[in-house]
Amino acid sequence: MKPATTPDTFRRRFLRNAAIAGYITGTAGPLPSALAAASSEPGNKGQIEPFHGAHQAGITTPIQRHTYFIAFDLTTGSRDDVVKLLKAWTDATAQMTAIPARFDTRADPQQPSTESGATVGLSPSRLTVTFGFGAGLFTKDGKDRYGLAKFRPEALVDLPRFVGDQLVPERTGGDLSIQASADDFQVVEWAVRRLVKLANGIAEMRWAQTGFTGGFKPGTTGRNQMGFLDGTINVPTQNTQAMNQFVWVGDEGPHWMHGGSYMVIRPIRISLDHWDDMKIAFQEETMGRHKASGAPIGKQHEFDPLGLDREDKDGNPVIAEFSHAALSAPENNHGAQILRRAFNYDNGITKVAERWPPWRQLVTFDAGLLFQCYQKDPRTGFISIFGKMAQFDMLNQFATHTGSGLFACPGGVPPGGFVGQNLFA
Amino acid sequence: MKPATTPDTFRRRFLRNAAIAGYITGTAGPLPSALAAASSEPGNKGQIEPFHGAHQAGITTPIQRHTYFIAFDLTTGSRDDVVKLLKAWTDATAQMTAIPARFDTRADPQQPSTESGATVGLSPSRLTVTFGFGAGLFTKDGKDRYGLAKFRPEALVDLPRFVGDQLVPERTGGDLSIQASADDFQVVEWAVRRLVKLANGIAEMRWAQTGFTGGFKPGTTGRNQMGFLDGTINVPTQNTQAMNQFVWVGDEGPHWMHGGSYMVIRPIRISLDHWDDMKIAFQEETMGRHKASGAPIGKQHEFDPLGLDREDKDGNPVIAEFSHAALSAPENNHGAQILRRAFNYDNGITKVAERWPPWRQLVTFDAGLLFQCYQKDPRTGFISIFGKMAQFDMLNQFATHTGSGLFACPGGVPPGGFVGQNLFA
Repeated sequence: MKPATTPDTFRRRFLRNAAIAGYITGTAGPLPSALAAASSEPGNKGQIEPFHGAHQAGITTPIQRHTYFIAFDLTTGSRDDVVKLLKAWTDATAQMTAIPARFDTRADPQQPSTESGATVGLSPSRLTVTFGFGAGLFTKDGKDRYGLAKFRPEALVDLPRFVGDQLVPERTGGDLSIQASADDFQVVEWAVRRLVKLANGIAEMRWAQTGFTGGFKPGTTGRNQMGFLDGTINVPTQNTQAMNQFVWVGDEGPHWMHGGSYMVIRPIRISLDHWDDMKIAFQEETMGRHKASGAPIGKQHEFDPLGLDREDKDGNPVIAEFSHAALSAPENNHGAQILRRAFNYDNGITKVAERWPPWRQLVTFDAGLLFQCYQKDPRTGFISIFGKMAQFDMLNQFATHTGSGLFACPGGVPPGGFVGQNLFA
Repeated sequence: MKPATTPDTFRRRFLRNAAIAGYITGTAGPLPSALAAASSEPGNKGQIEPFHGAHQAGITTPIQRHTYFIAFDLTTGSRDDVVKLLKAWTDATAQMTAIPARFDTRADPQQPSTESGATVGLSPSRLTVTFGFGAGLFTKDGKDRYGLAKFRPEALVDLPRFVGDQLVPERTGGDLSIQASADDFQVVEWAVRRLVKLANGIAEMRWAQTGFTGGFKPGTTGRNQMGFLDGTINVPTQNTQAMNQFVWVGDEGPHWMHGGSYMVIRPIRISLDHWDDMKIAFQEETMGRHKASGAPIGKQHEFDPLGLDREDKDGNPVIAEFSHAALSAPENNHGAQILRRAFNYDNGITKVAERWPPWRQLVTFDAGLLFQCYQKDPRTGFISIFGKMAQFDMLNQFATHTGSGLFACPGGVPPGGFVGQNLFA
């Protein structure tokens, strides 16, 4: 359909109205003066997560309310395109995390704007974007597309097939990943749409998954959809020594991964209606923890030590051997720890066949856990810990891993640099 | 997998720990004393939307941040089952909207709990649940399953096919509908899961759609994903006369719909990447409004009258005849108005074929508008207004209606009653 008025009419009208209405910022990079102004606005206090630093944002950032993960397949054959994309993503992210869209009176209404404007009026909402490199960036189908094959870290393995895996290709793998998280889903959605647009002609979305958390009191452990406190035992992010031991890549890794971390992501469908039908006592035995307090079975407080050697008077272990808590405990994993950063997800409804008698077919929620963890090396982290859990965890009868990804998330970006710059140097 | 300890061991352990841990409330109905306590907790101030009243909650309630709409097919042949479900839904909703899950030390750990416990620690987050009756409750496939055919309101028509409709059965119709909305998605998700569980064996989910809004300043008009202010012209909910004229069913409708309203819901996929590529001037012409201010083209303030008769010096209408604003304006629709209550939606990514040259196939977001409106009569409301827009609205080149539903939402529920009670009296 043609516009009802001529372009010239519009041009005149817009020149007249430019001063009134203003337009969305058309600049690709950060605006230092606007940024400083945004940071000092009272409404933005505590709303801006710094983008530049030693590590990427979104790893130790206190978990936000919403997330959007997207894995991409690179469609270009050009190394320069990849660098161009990473630079564009870096610049856009530096800007978006500091300043949600503003209207810019200098912009030309005869041009599209850089982004949608959907967040004009919203705070930065603690937006972070975290970038990852999949194995396909280094080699794909045996091809070294960008001259990077020799830089693929040993730790960036192909994940083994785990017992019970029901991975679908549409939720698995990817050459690059982005993950935007913020306390406002509209900010998250706005950010990923802008980043996806920048990938036009270079990379195509392969799979995506949103996630959410409840608005629990900051500093407390939130509950998941199963009603249990989720993430009581985790690497303490304020503890530099622990972070260097378990999470951040150090001298043992390639130079370009310094300060980075390896991220495993797995959408895990939970049979929530089946779970909700279980006796509370059985749920607690499965978890190895009390539902109300989060305390280890038979203890009183969430952070009490598990005490896995405790037996009741019949000689049974107080915390079941195959409970989720026992199997994942560092003391049962040669001290190994991973930094969990998990969201809930809910993709609406889907048709499934139940995995238990009478094997009904039913319409249920495609919902559960968007599991994510960061670690120095997935071979001693996720693969080691989950390999055993995949076999024995009592929780498995309710959980189905439907997707999977492993991404090398490079270290942080200094001002003027771009994400992964040292890999391309 | 069998529990590693015997049920008896567990029973003893739980009796011992009951006082420590406590369990989730097992009561099906509201707990008056707990309710009063919840209302007076300082953290709950402004967080509770009253469930009982002359009208259902969730219609004039200031829009929440998240929503979950679910349409059901009734699978039972029994009228008593339908009544049982509506009573159970009413009781659960009265409780959930006032008190998110609590742990109840009296509950038996050898029983499942009423719900998941996922919201223990969260505020009620302004939760509302709104119920609707589709045509299938009255007659389905020519059958009067519940003896209600004679009570089907004339206004509960079968929606006509509109120009451009691309409805898929998986997003269309339904015999019953529920819609939970709150400022915390975890609360929304928890509520619908409990309500769905109550429908077990009586009704099955047919389709579902989540939605969200950005955290704009209360009392201001929020922006949608297209970057425009959304809902400037709307029925003023504080104006009883206007509400009675346009929204609430009065004496002209059947007794059981008194104080109720008819709700149209349509997931509208918007080609956001295509839209974002358009010049700002073209976007504004399409909408008939300025992007920054929301003012009618050529005017300064959001709430300035449209002034549809204005012409520029070339004799062209200042606001294009086929713009969204002009076509939907009451002055072009014999004064007709509907109460819009629309959310954004984002279902992740999907493969589509573009509707414009060069007709690329691409991976893009299945995202857009979860359009909803309430009206006294859809024949003079949505059907009349949208019938014309479906043909001429310039916005149509970016919008595809993929689903549709029309539901009769009965009036509010008095304490002790249940939703739709007068239909079954």
